[in-house]
This record gives sequence, C-alpha cells and structure tokens, in this order.
Amino acid sequence: MSALLDPFSAEIFLLDAAISQELDTLPTSLQPVAAYIAALPGKRIRPFICINVARCLGCADDTVYPLAAALEILHCATLLHDDILDEAHTRRGALAAHLQFSNKLAVLAGDAMFALAGDMVARYERPALVSIFSAAIRRTAEGQALEFSRLFDPQIDEAHYLSIISGKTAAMFEAAALAGAELAGAPARERAAAAGFGFNFGLAFQVMDDLLDFFPASNTGKPQGGDMREGKLTLPLICWLAASPLEARLDFLDKFSQKTLCSADAAALCAQIQSRGLINTIKLQAETYAQRASNHLKELPLNQFHGTLLTLTRSLPQTTEGLVR
Amino acid sequence: MSALLDPFSAEIFLLDAAISQELDTLPTSLQPVAAYIAALPGKRIRPFICINVARCLGCADDTVYPLAAALEILHCATLLHDDILDEAHTRRGALAAHLQFSNKLAVLAGDAMFALAGDMVARYERPALVSIFSAAIRRTAEGQALEFSRLFDPQIDEAHYLSIISGKTAAMFEAAALAGAELAGAPARERAAAAGFGFNFGLAFQVMDDLLDFFPASNTGKPQGGDMREGKLTLPLICWLAASPLEARLDFLDKFSQKTLCSADAAALCAQIQSRGLINTIKLQAETYAQRASNHLKELPLNQFHGTLLTLTRSLPQTTEGLVR
Repeated sequence: MSALLDPFSAEIFLLDAAISQELDTLPTSLQPVAAYIAALPGKRIRPFICINVARCLGCADDTVYPLAAALEILHCATLLHDDILDEAHTRRGALAAHLQFSNKLAVLAGDAMFALAGDMVARYERPALVSIFSAAIRRTAEGQALEFSRLFDPQIDEAHYLSIISGKTAAMFEAAALAGAELAGAPARERAAAAGFGFNFGLAFQVMDDLLDFFPASNTGKPQGGDMREGKLTLPLICWLAASPLEARLDFLDKFSQKTLCSADAAALCAQIQSRGLINTIKLQAETYAQRASNHLKELPLNQFHGTLLTLTRSLPQTTEGLVR
Repeated sequence: MSALLDPFSAEIFLLDAAISQELDTLPTSLQPVAAYIAALPGKRIRPFICINVARCLGCADDTVYPLAAALEILHCATLLHDDILDEAHTRRGALAAHLQFSNKLAVLAGDAMFALAGDMVARYERPALVSIFSAAIRRTAEGQALEFSRLFDPQIDEAHYLSIISGKTAAMFEAAALAGAELAGAPARERAAAAGFGFNFGLAFQVMDDLLDFFPASNTGKPQGGDMREGKLTLPLICWLAASPLEARLDFLDKFSQKTLCSADAAALCAQIQSRGLINTIKLQAETYAQRASNHLKELPLNQFHGTLLTLTRSLPQTTEGLVR
C-alpha cells in the first residue's frame, strides 16, 4: 500500500509536522512514550482519508492538518491502551510501548494523548466536529469492551465479529472521513456519503488486517496468529471453522476456549488459513466492503482526490497478493 | 462536610438519576466497574459546585444535570486510572476497583467513562463548554504526569507541590465552576470570578485532603500515610521537613527516596504531623486558598446559592476539627 500513499507524500510532511508540534506540548515525562508510539512505521491512514475527503470536497487550506493530526494522536492513544489489554509483545515490528516503558506510563500517556486530541478538536469551536469525534471515541471504546468481554469465547460468530470491528475500527474511519467532509462544509448528502465510505473502508481494512495476522511476522511486523493467542476469534478463523469437519472444529474450539492451543496447533492453523481457498473467501468479504465504500465515493466530486481514495479502496483487498504461497 | 451538603439533597436525587441513566448506556461488561466506582461514598463535590454556581447565576432549569453528571463521571474515570498508577489498595474505604475487577477492566472502564463524559458535554453543542472541559482534562492529565514523574523524589518543594495539585485537582474544580457559569450565560467578569473561585477552592480542598491522609484510615477511608508510601511528598511532609532538624530531615529523605521507610517510620511521622502545630500550619494554608475563593465569590450575585457556596468554602479548613487529638 505504501506506493499508493505516494500522492500523499506532498502532505505527509505537513501532517507529521502538525503531529510533532502537538506532541511537544505533552508533559516532558510522557514525550518519549508519545514519540515512540507515533514514530513506529505506520500508514497514517486515518489522517490520509480525512485530508483527501476534505480536499475532494473543496477544503484547500491548512486547516485540515490539526484535525487529521488529532485522528492519528487519538489512534496512538488507543494503541497504547490496547496493547495493555491484549498483553501484546510487539507493535508494528517493535517492542510494545508498555514493555518498552511501563504499564503505568502507557496508561498515563494514553490518557494525555486522548486529552490532547480532544483539545485539538475543541479548538475548532465547531460543535459538529466535536460530536463526530466524541461519538467515534465512544463507539471505539464500546467495540473494545465488546471484544474484551468475549475473549476466548468459542461462540463468536460473524455477526459478533462485525459488531466488534464496527466499533473498534470502522467508527474511527467513519469519523475520519466525516470530519473531513464537515470541515469542508459539505452538504448533508455528501457528509452521509463520506461517513458511509469511511465506515465500509474501515470494515474492509480490519478484515484484511485480521487476515494478515495469520501470515508470518516478517511480512506484517506482528507475530503470526497473535490474535488467536490473545483470544480473538476473527473472521479467518470463523470461516475456517465453517469449512472444517466437525471433529477438527470441536477440537480447536475446545483448545481455544481452554487456552491450551500449543505453538504447533497455531502454526498448523495459520498454514491452513494461508491456503488459497480461505484467503479468497476473506478477500471476497473485504472486497464486498470495499465495493460499498466505492459506491459511497460516487456521491463525492470527481477529482484527483476522489481518484486517490478510489485507488486506495480498490487496493485494500490486494494487500496479501505477494503473500499467497 | 456532609451536613453542609444538605441544601444539596433536594438536587442530589436528580443528579444521581442523571449519572445512573448515563452509566446504563455503557457496554454491559463495563457497567459493574462503573457502578462500583460511582457508588463509593463520595461527596459529589464537583457537581455540587457546578450546580450551585449555575443556580447562583440564574440557571433555574434541569439543563445543568447532565453537565454536572459529566463532571462526576469524568472524576470517576480519573479515579479508576489513578488507582492503577498509585497501586492503591483502597478507595473511599473499599477495595480499589482495579483489585476488585482487574487492571485491564479498570483501564477499559476508565476510557469508556472518559468517552461518555466527552459525549455528554458535546451534546450541548456549545464550543465554550467543550473548551472548558477539554482544557481541564488536559491540565488534569498534565498534573498527574508531573506527580508521577516526581514520585519518591526528595526534592519536591512547595512550588512543585502547587504545580502538581493545580493540575491534578484544581483545574477540574475550576472547570466545574466555570462550566456552571457558562451554562448560565454569565458575562465575562462573573465567568472569571467563578473560575477563580473553583480553582482556589480546589487548592484548599487538595491541601486538606493531603492533610487527612496522615490521619487514621477509620476517619478518612484511606490508609494512614498512604500518599507518603506511594512516593508523594505532599504539603504536610514539606512543612514537617521545614520544621525538622537537619538530621531527621536527611534521615527521612534518604529512606523516602530509597523506598525503605518502614511501618514504624511512617507511623511516627503521622503522629508528628498530627501534632497541633503542624495541623494549624496546613490549615492556615488551606484557609488562604479558601479566602481567595471567597473573595472571588463576592463577584457573584448574593442569593441562597451564593450562601451555600460560601458556607462550603469556609467549612473546608475545618474538616479535621474532630480529628485533632
């Protein structure tokens, strides 16, 4: 996807400057934590969407950068607390922040970054922007709570999975696109289209992210099968279960819920999920959401930014192209 | 202080109803944590100030309850994360929430309550209210970060102590009063007076709270000398140090910074701080801030709510009256 984000490179310098400038206002003791999480190789995909939707709808000035920067800072705050909840060891290929620093510093830095992002949005003095962010933050927390309450639960089905990712991921993508449209002063129909685009893009993004989790760490910067070990029954597993004979299914679910999956079990499962058939099933699902996102895009003006968003959306389900064995 | 809050009892039912109604919208898995922290015996002092300032300045309707409820929910969210940072065992006489549930649930419930409070304020669609809250949340996080970065630091002096409590406590009291004034549509001079009242009230409140920490748990619901054991050098200790001979001072600071204070050391120190002389020194400091708060109150209309706030302010430095041996 990095090649696709190239059109963005002209703006990423200004975005990163806005992020750094804000992080520099955090308490001195928290700056190393904030700088660490913000500097991990990331795609800046939420600000990318916000900026391109705003540009697409006619916002041509620098007012978009603090808004886009707030999205990335908010996302970083979420990552800090997420990795504590997940007991994650790595994040984007590096040691997780709560291990690099401490659980306490990660809680505190996350809180301070949430507070900073809230303050950045408040500075616009526009109730609609504040509402977009506050609703998204609530839905993100709700999605995380739902996921956390169902860890190691063998009864998660596709509907539950969708509820979880709608909250924990898609809500903030929706907010990113909607905030861009709102900042541009777009009318209601275009705001609704932007929201629908962002939400479905977020679903496609998370579905692909959950598929990549079953590929080796060298490709994704995350441990292979990490979600499964953390107790998360994601779509690839749900599809694998649906396609497996009863005995294999019961054996897996028993070990999963009893937390007795061994490394060999996990490796065998990853290998099976990496089979072309299952990858195609998941990609098809991601393509469905990406197609819905593209359909919403049709309501937005046709210009270079529209083109960039469309290309990015179409590329999402291709992410594993090089990974298929 | 409970008798003083009696005038509030007519409103506390409506406030508590607003708090419960909002907490019921949290994810099911987090409701027990939120209900636990919100139900601990507390003085609801931030909403009390918000409501009375708003009433004093002419706000006579129910619009104040969600605003006041947001302050209490925000405060509860802070407590959940604070107790993790402090490794506190008890809170208001009960087991701390992170021990009653888990660190993870306390992080998650804290985040969800922060998000809920933000959403409640956003619903007013008034940029000034949002700015008041977002600034206060930032300053609270900054105060906590400053305190956390200086734990077990023997060099904390009164200026550092004031920086810490200005952020971690007084900023939210300032916001409580200022938000009440803003909601009432008060002019700039009265808004500034309300802010000054809240800020100085908060300083007096924290100074007295830090003094009470040196009294037995049966009186305060907290372990005696808990702050000192958590590495916090608060005003009573700073004053005790200033009044102690060099040898005693060096002995304490050495043990404090090395974390080698034993129970006998702590008990002896509490006994010394409970001596009438030191109590009076601290109370005098609290009275100074309470007097400044009262002076700001003079700018507000003279009515029954003004009277309630004045009585509450004057009562603050009297809190230990029954504790003096």
